Amino acid sequence: MKSISLLGATGSIGRQTIDVIRQHPEEFSLAAFSAGRNIDETRKLIQSFQPRLVSVALKEDADRLKTEFPSVQILHGEEGLVEVAIFRSADILVNAVLGSVGLYPTLQAIAAGKKVAIANKETLVTAGHLVMAAAKKNNVDLLPVDSEHSAIFQCLQGEKEKNIERLILTASGGSFRDRTREELKNVTVEEALNHPNWSMGAKITIDSATMMNKGLEVIEAHWLFDLPYEQIDVILHRESIIHSMVEFHDSSVIAQLGTPDMRIPIQYALTYPDRLPLPDAKRLSLAEAGKLHFQPVDKRRFRMLALAYEAGQAGGTMPTVLNAANEAAVAAFLDGKMTFLQIDEMVERALSEHKPLANPDLETIQYADKEARNFVHSLL
Amino acid sequence: MKSISLLGATGSIGRQTIDVIRQHPEEFSLAAFSAGRNIDETRKLIQSFQPRLVSVALKEDADRLKTEFPSVQILHGEEGLVEVAIFRSADILVNAVLGSVGLYPTLQAIAAGKKVAIANKETLVTAGHLVMAAAKKNNVDLLPVDSEHSAIFQCLQGEKEKNIERLILTASGGSFRDRTREELKNVTVEEALNHPNWSMGAKITIDSATMMNKGLEVIEAHWLFDLPYEQIDVILHRESIIHSMVEFHDSSVIAQLGTPDMRIPIQYALTYPDRLPLPDAKRLSLAEAGKLHFQPVDKRRFRMLALAYEAGQAGGTMPTVLNAANEAAVAAFLDGKMTFLQIDEMVERALSEHKPLANPDLETIQYADKEARNFVHSLL
Repeated sequence: MKSISLLGATGSIGRQTIDVIRQHPEEFSLAAFSAGRNIDETRKLIQSFQPRLVSVALKEDADRLKTEFPSVQILHGEEGLVEVAIFRSADILVNAVLGSVGLYPTLQAIAAGKKVAIANKETLVTAGHLVMAAAKKNNVDLLPVDSEHSAIFQCLQGEKEKNIERLILTASGGSFRDRTREELKNVTVEEALNHPNWSMGAKITIDSATMMNKGLEVIEAHWLFDLPYEQIDVILHRESIIHSMVEFHDSSVIAQLGTPDMRIPIQYALTYPDRLPLPDAKRLSLAEAGKLHFQPVDKRRFRMLALAYEAGQAGGTMPTVLNAANEAAVAAFLDGKMTFLQIDEMVERALSEHKPLANPDLETIQYADKEARNFVHSLL
Repeated sequence: MKSISLLGATGSIGRQTIDVIRQHPEEFSLAAFSAGRNIDETRKLIQSFQPRLVSVALKEDADRLKTEFPSVQILHGEEGLVEVAIFRSADILVNAVLGSVGLYPTLQAIAAGKKVAIANKETLVTAGHLVMAAAKKNNVDLLPVDSEHSAIFQCLQGEKEKNIERLILTASGGSFRDRTREELKNVTVEEALNHPNWSMGAKITIDSATMMNKGLEVIEAHWLFDLPYEQIDVILHRESIIHSMVEFHDSSVIAQLGTPDMRIPIQYALTYPDRLPLPDAKRLSLAEAGKLHFQPVDKRRFRMLALAYEAGQAGGTMPTVLNAANEAAVAAFLDGKMTFLQIDEMVERALSEHKPLANPDLETIQYADKEARNFVHSLL
């Protein structure tokens, strides 16, 4: 029986993690979780799983839940997140919170010797150097949850790192993959939110359309698999059936494929290095799919990908600025305060204005993050 | 340094094995090899690699080579094959001879504790039960060389057998994949020999066109990976870029991809579980390929595949009859003594006439083999 703590239980990845746990009551238990402001759902989760510790965003919600569930420890805020992350009886932390708030609890969990399944992009994008160093020092496994990184991780089982020629991340191209930049001028929020393959949150769907999502994944892959950016490629693959690939230096390529069901990589992170059945997952039928398409990515068309490579290669605080400026710009776009093409523009300007600092500590990262957001806000 | 013995050095797989050895002089040496009647090439190989032992088909060729190379041990015939197979200083045997002559030396090599890289289909098709039992008893690795089985073997690294849902062998469909059975009535030998993706010997190219090749591979996969036929599927994939796949019970699929270069699986068998660079192999570019196609296999169109499943499931001497009748029929087709569609017909008749024997020993297998060939010859 594996005991799990989960940050972000009521988000998209969190809910699917809950589903995986629910399907394997003999294998997994939910020892602790955090949720945001969705108190109805939090209440149901407490009733279903009877965790020992729960944390929510607001103090008033925590107080209410305390009276309803006197036998459960109820916390709130950032402190609560950390307590969930390091909950003593948990074997593995699934970090599925959105945004930079996921970083500090991850570092604390690693310091406490917990395995960490990372679905929180910001953790590796902004502080990959700190996270990987801490994982190495504490001899802790970092398990990817993103479908692309899980694919690569699966392809690397039984293989040696020295034999890797390159990683090949697949990109669906998002909602606007068949449009030129010219045709992106007047796109609406609704159009941008219409992802062809995956049903995901608003922020990540916009990031797919700008391909910032793939850019962030390239930076994550750099840290997770300890490879230089020159060995990480991206290819357009409309169907999102091949989730990613590894080419070895004998020119053999190993790929992981599947239907777009995030429960598969989530469950793999929980069962690694073993697998468990996932009976209600839709099985892949290539005969039904008929064709898989591939094309090179045009980095002039998808400027965000070029910016992400540049920020990743520059290192230091640059990926933090990339990510924070993008978050602020995407939020502004979703609020109708910015056009779609201005998202790229903002991020590019934020990067060019920023004076990068090498090897930033947590405080410096948080400062660079805030500064980049303020920069974008100042231009609205 | 790995010391290699090679059966069938001047055939298609043998030559590519030689090329792999030549590219890695620090890693591999050729200790012993057998060749058929191509004495010029045998001479060149002796000069290049200075093996300790060489065997050729005919006594007169052996006598001639003895005088030319007095320091090399030269043998001939079946006895020579066995001596090469069990050559004491070799770490691994590559069995790349064609036909049922490959079986006995393989069993001898396994009994002598050698790792065996198997490119000889008949070995597993006709005597999978004997070969696998011997390998288990002697704790010997059997390493697949066929691109499909190597693909599956690569996909299984780091995985557990219990988690396998099914193996998915890809089939190009061969020279006539876009024709109906009706359109196969008057096809010529030249047309049949025109394989769309791979350049191979005549026998295997015809077997690709009838899909007997895939049928034999299904039987091999059954033995190599110890799975029932219900868990082995075949899918049509025109481009032969995905070489085969494994689906796990969490519905994740791992695939191995590459350009059609047999040196890649050959080298993998020699370097397993490690890999080595193969600098002059053409790298796969999916962006260049553009599309990969998949479709279900129609077993009424490709009757040989249905026959192979039936023979495999019946077991005993049936796969031997399948293989031997097919060899005889293909030879007759290549000699202009039979039409293309008669190949299927002959095999089907041979199978329906045969009274299968369970758990045959080597002698019974050889007898069933001969009987099936005689049956086909009697109908010419």
